[in-house]
Amino acid sequence: MVCSKKQKWTHKLRMLEDAYRQTVTEQALAQQLFGSITDLFPICRSITGSGVRETLSYLNRISPMEIHEVPSGTEVFDWVIPKEWNIRDAYIKDSSGKRVVDFQRSNLHVVNYSTPIAGQFSLEQLRPHLFTLPDQPDLIPYRTSYYEESWGFCLSQNQLDALPDDEYEVFIDASLEPGSLTYGEIYIPGKSEEEVLISCHICHPSMANDNLSGMVIAAYLAAHLKSLPLHYSYRFLFVPGTIGSITWLSLNEQTLPKIQHGLVLAGLGDPGPLTYKRSRRGDDAIDRAASHIVYQQSEQPPIEFSPYGYDERQYCSPGVDLPVGRLSRTPHGSFPEYHTSADNLDFIQPKQLADSLMACLAIFDIIEQNRYYINTKPMGEPQLSKYGLYSATGGNKQSPEIQMAMLWVLNLSDRKHSLLDIAERSGLSFETILLAAQKLYKHGLLTPDEKLWRHNPK
Amino acid sequence: MVCSKKQKWTHKLRMLEDAYRQTVTEQALAQQLFGSITDLFPICRSITGSGVRETLSYLNRISPMEIHEVPSGTEVFDWVIPKEWNIRDAYIKDSSGKRVVDFQRSNLHVVNYSTPIAGQFSLEQLRPHLFTLPDQPDLIPYRTSYYEESWGFCLSQNQLDALPDDEYEVFIDASLEPGSLTYGEIYIPGKSEEEVLISCHICHPSMANDNLSGMVIAAYLAAHLKSLPLHYSYRFLFVPGTIGSITWLSLNEQTLPKIQHGLVLAGLGDPGPLTYKRSRRGDDAIDRAASHIVYQQSEQPPIEFSPYGYDERQYCSPGVDLPVGRLSRTPHGSFPEYHTSADNLDFIQPKQLADSLMACLAIFDIIEQNRYYINTKPMGEPQLSKYGLYSATGGNKQSPEIQMAMLWVLNLSDRKHSLLDIAERSGLSFETILLAAQKLYKHGLLTPDEKLWRHNPK
Amino acid sequence: MVCSKKQKWTHKLRMLEDAYRQTVTEQALAQQLFGSITDLFPICRSITGSGVRETLSYLNRISPMEIHEVPSGTEVFDWVIPKEWNIRDAYIKDSSGKRVVDFQRSNLHVVNYSTPIAGQFSLEQLRPHLFTLPDQPDLIPYRTSYYEESWGFCLSQNQLDALPDDEYEVFIDASLEPGSLTYGEIYIPGKSEEEVLISCHICHPSMANDNLSGMVIAAYLAAHLKSLPLHYSYRFLFVPGTIGSITWLSLNEQTLPKIQHGLVLAGLGDPGPLTYKRSRRGDDAIDRAASHIVYQQSEQPPIEFSPYGYDERQYCSPGVDLPVGRLSRTPHGSFPEYHTSADNLDFIQPKQLADSLMACLAIFDIIEQNRYYINTKPMGEPQLSKYGLYSATGGNKQSPEIQMAMLWVLNLSDRKHSLLDIAERSGLSFETILLAAQKLYKHGLLTPDEKLWRHNPK
Repeated sequence: MVCSKKQKWTHKLRMLEDAYRQTVTEQALAQQLFGSITDLFPICRSITGSGVRETLSYLNRISPMEIHEVPSGTEVFDWVIPKEWNIRDAYIKDSSGKRVVDFQRSNLHVVNYSTPIAGQFSLEQLRPHLFTLPDQPDLIPYRTSYYEESWGFCLSQNQLDALPDDEYEVFIDASLEPGSLTYGEIYIPGKSEEEVLISCHICHPSMANDNLSGMVIAAYLAAHLKSLPLHYSYRFLFVPGTIGSITWLSLNEQTLPKIQHGLVLAGLGDPGPLTYKRSRRGDDAIDRAASHIVYQQSEQPPIEFSPYGYDERQYCSPGVDLPVGRLSRTPHGSFPEYHTSADNLDFIQPKQLADSLMACLAIFDIIEQNRYYINTKPMGEPQLSKYGLYSATGGNKQSPEIQMAMLWVLNLSDRKHSLLDIAERSGLSFETILLAAQKLYKHGLLTPDEKLWRHNPK
Repeated sequence: MVCSKKQKWTHKLRMLEDAYRQTVTEQALAQQLFGSITDLFPICRSITGSGVRETLSYLNRISPMEIHEVPSGTEVFDWVIPKEWNIRDAYIKDSSGKRVVDFQRSNLHVVNYSTPIAGQFSLEQLRPHLFTLPDQPDLIPYRTSYYEESWGFCLSQNQLDALPDDEYEVFIDASLEPGSLTYGEIYIPGKSEEEVLISCHICHPSMANDNLSGMVIAAYLAAHLKSLPLHYSYRFLFVPGTIGSITWLSLNEQTLPKIQHGLVLAGLGDPGPLTYKRSRRGDDAIDRAASHIVYQQSEQPPIEFSPYGYDERQYCSPGVDLPVGRLSRTPHGSFPEYHTSADNLDFIQPKQLADSLMACLAIFDIIEQNRYYINTKPMGEPQLSKYGLYSATGGNKQSPEIQMAMLWVLNLSDRKHSLLDIAERSGLSFETILLAAQKLYKHGLLTPDEKLWRHNPK
Repeated sequence: MVCSKKQKWTHKLRMLEDAYRQTVTEQALAQQLFGSITDLFPICRSITGSGVRETLSYLNRISPMEIHEVPSGTEVFDWVIPKEWNIRDAYIKDSSGKRVVDFQRSNLHVVNYSTPIAGQFSLEQLRPHLFTLPDQPDLIPYRTSYYEESWGFCLSQNQLDALPDDEYEVFIDASLEPGSLTYGEIYIPGKSEEEVLISCHICHPSMANDNLSGMVIAAYLAAHLKSLPLHYSYRFLFVPGTIGSITWLSLNEQTLPKIQHGLVLAGLGDPGPLTYKRSRRGDDAIDRAASHIVYQQSEQPPIEFSPYGYDERQYCSPGVDLPVGRLSRTPHGSFPEYHTSADNLDFIQPKQLADSLMACLAIFDIIEQNRYYINTKPMGEPQLSKYGLYSATGGNKQSPEIQMAMLWVLNLSDRKHSLLDIAERSGLSFETILLAAQKLYKHGLLTPDEKLWRHNPK
């Protein structure tokens, strides 16, 4: 029985990341992720409507999900589900009939949630409805007006400057009517009912990094995790930003106590290094696990929590206060392409997408594998050479790093330090510490603490 | 009733600082402070005697105070009130009858507490009684001999070097006789019997920064506070250094438990940035409030407590241990003008005096206004746009800083964080956080915690 | 009785360091230490055998010690005492009969614990048994093979490169047979049964810094301490590395609870600054005392504990977990002479040896003298001038540092701060703080806390 336990444990070693590597090369994975983003890029998404449904339908083919429809008017905490918005076409035509601003060329051209309009306007009359980025004159901004009924167009400053005084025909073929808010949910049961929450926002129209990167990575993660034995259950949410997470929280209050760890995924394809923003709790298990992996990969220290950003704002509101952090690359708002037409397929890189996905798995590996062990020979060091774990004269049989990792694991396996504690204290990677622990365990020099699966390794 | 509470709270917002601004411009205030210092500068003060009485009589016209006289010989803790010292004239005349050192030109010329003397001395006989600053040859030092009876003169090194071998007539028309120690006290009752202590030393002769700046600012502060509704009671002490604070402590032991916060004011007119020296307790409410304001104004981190300096030495002695820190500009001893004739009216600046006074009020504002609130909509964020607290499409109705402040206040108003906690954590000013809290409170999104007026916001 | 206490206390002031200075100049001490190392340098030591016995016999003349012999085969925790190794001669002769590698020239030439061999080898056959340092081609490496029976020679890369293809005669006249492991122990009883442990490793052959410096300093320390009144009992261990400390721990488990503080001494003669490596506990009394002295002497911050190094690995194993740190100069492995023939008498400096010994005594001084006092006049400052402890007009009677130290001691002697706490907080040396405390105590301004001799001043 001890033997079977050992086998099981050994088998689980780095299962999530390694398992992926066994099925697909990182390069192929990178192309899969990029390919899906390319497919989804043209769709005009919003917080409600057919663009969201089409997107979820595509993601559903990567990893089957439950699609929820919540009717307009439903009260969700302090909010109300808005009317559903759908758009078919929109343009500004000059007096010659030429479309000078055309929704068909970029869905950013229309202010998201614009009410329908059809009429003739002079340029001066139009101006209050036109939005540009004077400091980035080539780019179209991304604008929304969810909770104030209005209409408008976004265009580049250069486009605007080139418009002559003229009589323009304005047309927005949109509807804003009672309907529903749509979101997707994937639940992957593990051995425990305790959950890991992964959330991404699906409401942005043609933007690659923010947040097609997040939703596509989430879908592939879910597809991968489904095939593996897991301790935790994993719940993936594909929700429109703010209103979507508030809706889910409001409808699932009974589920919240089960959530032990969580990540918001957003902006994971740009060329910048991985970054992690702490949960409101600041130093929970997810904060330590994600900070460790991000530091190992990119040497970026974690970003302190602030009540701004993506849906971590809702998951970390004071009455909810879930241990949910955010994994990104360059933080939103701090890259010039943010919320513009430059957040396109050229801005994201296949390799960055794949690395982001693998980092998620490495974080989950810590969450799944971190434990407390007890040194079975705590008086002095055990004679490692007896077990073939120490080199004799001619150079090391073990790599020096593993050798040091074994000494650290032996020294700190005193019921007070988890493997992650030991990794943090030693400056070695969790992966190395886990490997050392496995070797020591194989030789009976470690025994699991009865507190196995303690979640918060603080 | 809720409404009247709201009104009251709104009314109290930044009352202390703003109230001053409503009555006088900062420039006029600066001139008032500088003018009073100019008036008081010529008086020869000491730890006892008529110079102190004259000074307090002047300050009494700014803000009426109680004048205490404690007889010589009174035991105060380990000390005894010394004899009273009064001086009328003093000089050294050369053989031609010319006053080569003349008390009438600068009261620093006589060692403070010099015993009377009249006689003829050769230069060599005089030398042990002459004090100079060889490294600052233009300046007259400030010297005292309170507890060892002796006499002496202070002069510039240049003056000394110019003295020929001659027979000199020395005369000090002083008295050192039983009398009393004089100090002033102003008590301004607030709603609570709990007190804020403000102390300044009044014993230095003609020195502008150390400490006419402190005593004049204290007097104007008292005059201002008297006109305002206050939570705390405020007690101002105008005492001779060391022996004065020890005397007050010794005579008022029953009052000590009421003192919740305190500041020693000294050296507040020089051109340097504001600095705050922590109380012995190190991180009490006054330490946090004063550190916050000083950092906001001057980006100076607080100076750690040390058992040296001004009367904080006595207030922070181990058996007294009051939460009293020190507000200064350039710390004593670290500017070349310190304790010399160069600490004169040219060394201090009207604007610096006014800024120092306003900083005191900003500190008291935190002490008076810091509280705990509770977010009434803690599940997710409230929909701020519903309340007119969030911008729609076209730019922010709220300033971005207030917008962020509202998010911080909402996120951390969980019974665990005071407004000052939130200011510290967010990096925003207490003023901004308070303003955000007020807006949220007006719309019912915050409610005061029942622990209102918790004093120590740690 | 109070008087006699005072006298005793005064007498004890800095007794350990000062007492040494009274008996010998630091220069003479430096020469004694260097002379003993010179005497011991040629001996071929190992973890067992006659080299160790000869070494201990020499040290026994400096400070008499108990010599323990533990038979081969004895089980000590996870280890077994190995066979005893003795070597008389070893060489490699070329075909002309010339000794091209000769144990008589350097005992590093033979891999320590080599099995006996006699035979003819071609150069190619020899190569697997030859060890060099290609990056330091002039130096002979130091190699051992304690727990894997084999034989080999160490030589410089230059020597090896100069060997022609030839038939070589190889001869190692060694024995590896049941015998015993030898270690030395000195126990110096103090007033208390609580102990300070000092441990050094004695197993390295001709190496001056690592660790003749440690064992000779330990012997002189013991000789000195024997002559003095001590609070603690001191136990010195002269043990072969790893197996020796494990043997002692295994045979003396009942003694472990008495050990309150400890130091491993190693590498104390090289030109580098003193360094201290924390115990596993990290901030125990020994850690604070040694860190304080090392910082005062060399401004080196303490090195964090790691489970690598010398016998602190065993004393700080998780089941033993004694408060034992390590005092060294340049840490092992980080100087190029480490474990080579360059760790010779030229590498160490007499003055460094003496300074290291005095630092040990300064550390023990803190351990012996640190206490809690209570300010007897805690309300305000006492009037120091009354006691002759404060200067009047003309300059200070006390040095400014002692003056500040007195203020710190008075301010913090509140039952919560030991003298070491005060030294750390004030930035002054323990010596200065102790001197100030002594002056205050003499004048009745301090009284010892009843918690005298509290060991862990945290």
